[in-house]
Amino acid sequence: MLTLRSYVAGAWAEGTGTLQTLVNPATEEPIARAGTGGIDMGKALEHARSKGGPALRALTFAERGALLKAMSDVIQAHRDEILDLAVRNGGNTRGDAKFDVDGATFTLSSYAQIGQALGDARFVVDGEGIQLGRTPRFHGQHIAVPRRGVAVHINAFNFPAWGFAEKAAVAILAGVPVVSKPATSSAMVAHRITELLVEKGVLPEGALSLLVGSAGDVLEHLGPQDVVAFTGSGDTGVKIRSMANVIRHSVRINVEADSLNAAILGPDAAPGSDTYDFFLKDVLRDMTQKAGQKCTAIRRVLAPMSTAAQVRDDLVERLRAITVGNPAQEGVRMGPVATADQLQDVREGIGQLAKDGRLAFGGATEVQAVGAPAGKGFFVSPTLVEVDAGAAAPTVHSREVFGPVATVVPYSGQPDDAAEIVSRGGGGLVSSVYSEDTAFTADVVLGLAPFHGRVFLGSAKIAEASPGPGTVLPLLVHGGPGRAGGGEELGGLRGLAFYMQRVALEGSRPVIDRVTGNKAT
Amino acid sequence: MLTLRSYVAGAWAEGTGTLQTLVNPATEEPIARAGTGGIDMGKALEHARSKGGPALRALTFAERGALLKAMSDVIQAHRDEILDLAVRNGGNTRGDAKFDVDGATFTLSSYAQIGQALGDARFVVDGEGIQLGRTPRFHGQHIAVPRRGVAVHINAFNFPAWGFAEKAAVAILAGVPVVSKPATSSAMVAHRITELLVEKGVLPEGALSLLVGSAGDVLEHLGPQDVVAFTGSGDTGVKIRSMANVIRHSVRINVEADSLNAAILGPDAAPGSDTYDFFLKDVLRDMTQKAGQKCTAIRRVLAPMSTAAQVRDDLVERLRAITVGNPAQEGVRMGPVATADQLQDVREGIGQLAKDGRLAFGGATEVQAVGAPAGKGFFVSPTLVEVDAGAAAPTVHSREVFGPVATVVPYSGQPDDAAEIVSRGGGGLVSSVYSEDTAFTADVVLGLAPFHGRVFLGSAKIAEASPGPGTVLPLLVHGGPGRAGGGEELGGLRGLAFYMQRVALEGSRPVIDRVTGNKAT
Repeated sequence: MLTLRSYVAGAWAEGTGTLQTLVNPATEEPIARAGTGGIDMGKALEHARSKGGPALRALTFAERGALLKAMSDVIQAHRDEILDLAVRNGGNTRGDAKFDVDGATFTLSSYAQIGQALGDARFVVDGEGIQLGRTPRFHGQHIAVPRRGVAVHINAFNFPAWGFAEKAAVAILAGVPVVSKPATSSAMVAHRITELLVEKGVLPEGALSLLVGSAGDVLEHLGPQDVVAFTGSGDTGVKIRSMANVIRHSVRINVEADSLNAAILGPDAAPGSDTYDFFLKDVLRDMTQKAGQKCTAIRRVLAPMSTAAQVRDDLVERLRAITVGNPAQEGVRMGPVATADQLQDVREGIGQLAKDGRLAFGGATEVQAVGAPAGKGFFVSPTLVEVDAGAAAPTVHSREVFGPVATVVPYSGQPDDAAEIVSRGGGGLVSSVYSEDTAFTADVVLGLAPFHGRVFLGSAKIAEASPGPGTVLPLLVHGGPGRAGGGEELGGLRGLAFYMQRVALEGSRPVIDRVTGNKAT
Repeated sequence: MLTLRSYVAGAWAEGTGTLQTLVNPATEEPIARAGTGGIDMGKALEHARSKGGPALRALTFAERGALLKAMSDVIQAHRDEILDLAVRNGGNTRGDAKFDVDGATFTLSSYAQIGQALGDARFVVDGEGIQLGRTPRFHGQHIAVPRRGVAVHINAFNFPAWGFAEKAAVAILAGVPVVSKPATSSAMVAHRITELLVEKGVLPEGALSLLVGSAGDVLEHLGPQDVVAFTGSGDTGVKIRSMANVIRHSVRINVEADSLNAAILGPDAAPGSDTYDFFLKDVLRDMTQKAGQKCTAIRRVLAPMSTAAQVRDDLVERLRAITVGNPAQEGVRMGPVATADQLQDVREGIGQLAKDGRLAFGGATEVQAVGAPAGKGFFVSPTLVEVDAGAAAPTVHSREVFGPVATVVPYSGQPDDAAEIVSRGGGGLVSSVYSEDTAFTADVVLGLAPFHGRVFLGSAKIAEASPGPGTVLPLLVHGGPGRAGGGEELGGLRGLAFYMQRVALEGSRPVIDRVTGNKAT
């Protein structure tokens, strides 16, 4: 069986001791194993800091952007091979796999363009110069320079390509070397991408390392110039935030965790209208794409009381048409969830949600999966739960069931009411509103805004152009307050801030202009 | 004896149980007492959230700015009374007190102007709109809206007026209500300012609360929309960051903690030159102003090996001329430190520093203080320690002695060497370089930048306009990585981000324009 290696300190290293087995989630067939036993994590980080950091900082933004473009090109050139791995190791349908892999290349090439636009600079000039005294001579200017540390990226199992690429793109463009740790269960994609990047010599030595297996004690070696970006469960986020060295050294942390994203149907969007159909399509996509394993997926479907039963029925009808099974099989629309643990967690979550209301479709019981060996595979049915209007639905607003599961929540049709119900989720990545009533939309949007990193305004007018609320775009921020982890990634240039130190320069204008590369005036 | 009360839930409340006694640090005479026993902290926060938040959010930025101007005016109108309190309760000379109180009014009026410039808006439109699809219709726009929670401000003892005002100004302009907790030992200034603001009815109900005494369990009541801004010791910062609810709810925290700020003398700045004199003046001011109790004060004085002995001698000569004593007394140039604990801590720190090198002036022993009762008052001599060049000076780079204490550290005269030595401090608020050699300055600045929130470029050309590196300016960011707490405050508009949620709006352009108040195009 294939043993996946880690790439640390400029070399491939096989873990010693007990290895974890990776399986095909549709068949439970073991396909690889991996572990980080025996790897010196402190040395791995120091190599990145001392080799990768200086190499990246020596490059201009345009040159770093060119690296990202080259990364994107390598992935694109091996797209089919990577898609196959995602189907085998991730339980992805081919469509799911494309969503992941094309998200990776798109994000890399978007940041490549940002790099090109930043040109010959090596740091960011932040905002306008500021006159500090009575004369222009006494001057202030903010700049943002690369941190001197390493960026440890801990990625979730659901997007082995995109998660890897979107974090790496921003760090590398900022000039900070990356140590990336994919979730072990679905690590084959990130592992293969790294193999390709190393083989082709795309990046300077030390700019990218990969840990396949447990993170071990890697975070205990972090210091004041290092950063951690983590995507995964809120519980793991809490553990990282609680670490003594992380707290003591003010290690920067970005957490992207649980989120009970909501989609609100406006009272104007009557069943059968274009807006209504757009809404149904987005909900259905989010419930079934990647078997609902997207941090941005719609979990709570708010429909006006008068329409809620119709929404339920229309969703049930469409969910009934979804073929669940081995994604390697023709005609399968939804694959399994990623691991046995996830399956158990989703089933448990469905059980809890159902106590809040009624199962309208699906449930926690075993599902007939097409093309999978009998009794094998981590399959679960798409599941819709319906609750009564009002506050007495605690699980709906407190537990993210990370699978093909959503809840229909009736509301009054008033914008304030919708925003209040959504806010019970305690902070989310993205919520959406589907309406052609601009006044209603504006009210809902401003009600949702304090609780979200992104708000999606679903109008039929953008239906064709829109990838839906579940798609993270490189030019818009991604993250959210509270339960969602309190983090922020991407957003074009905004994303660089996490990897850089903003510093105010205060002094004589001609000298500051010399530092920032402006002509003296 | 005067009992200071807290202002919570729209009313003045006297603490029950054991009260802490506030003294005059020059005479140790008790002058007031205070405590928060019996105060319901959860209710205090909820009042701020439910009354103050909506009231502030209903105002435009210009209207919030007008509140800040009114706050500034009230303080200005009672300046003399407040200065007297600062001298009595803070051990401040009148000059020290002015520095604090005028810093408060200047920061408030600066943010009042920012509010005026933001005009009729109630939230910030962040950056340009972004075309997301092939046509301009599919559009993105970031906005930043006030968080729905409360801002708890925990301030340090050294700047009871400025610390209070700079944090309150930014939060209130952002639209977030404030619960401010001054350090108890020097709370009379913030207490009196709040009394005046309440008396004059300057702010809407719930917009400002004050806790005089222990913070009690106030931080345990914080949730996902709340923020804490803390200035004080790194150890307390660690405690706040470690709290379970703070971690679990992603409560935003800004910490401004210890900092071993450095001043680097360039090899070109020969003794007797204007640059050299400017440098000496800044070091001397930072050592003695507020008895060295400024988070931004110069702690490490880097001088080229060839000049270090001269720098030491010139500083010693000037320090000898500083009259230490009761600041109420005419002719006293430096008062006591703030408390008995601080005195002990400073003495202990001097003892440790001295082991790294040699005492050039002062020391930990008792000092003859003018105008203070014999054996009374928390006085310490200005103290200069000299170390050998090189790495073997661990305390110099690891312990901030929060008093009138600095160390002379010789270095090679090379910019890289200077930056490397300074970086051993593990992250600081501000460091400075004094030189007319632009190439040298540029190299040092870029070497220092990743480790600082601000870098001060000391040229003789700005000597007259400059308040020196020790003064925090409202339009420049204040904070620093690593040991300095990893935070960032002020910086004009930048400071608002901490109190707001940035959210990406994604959808149809005319609808987004309606939300953001732009004309549809």
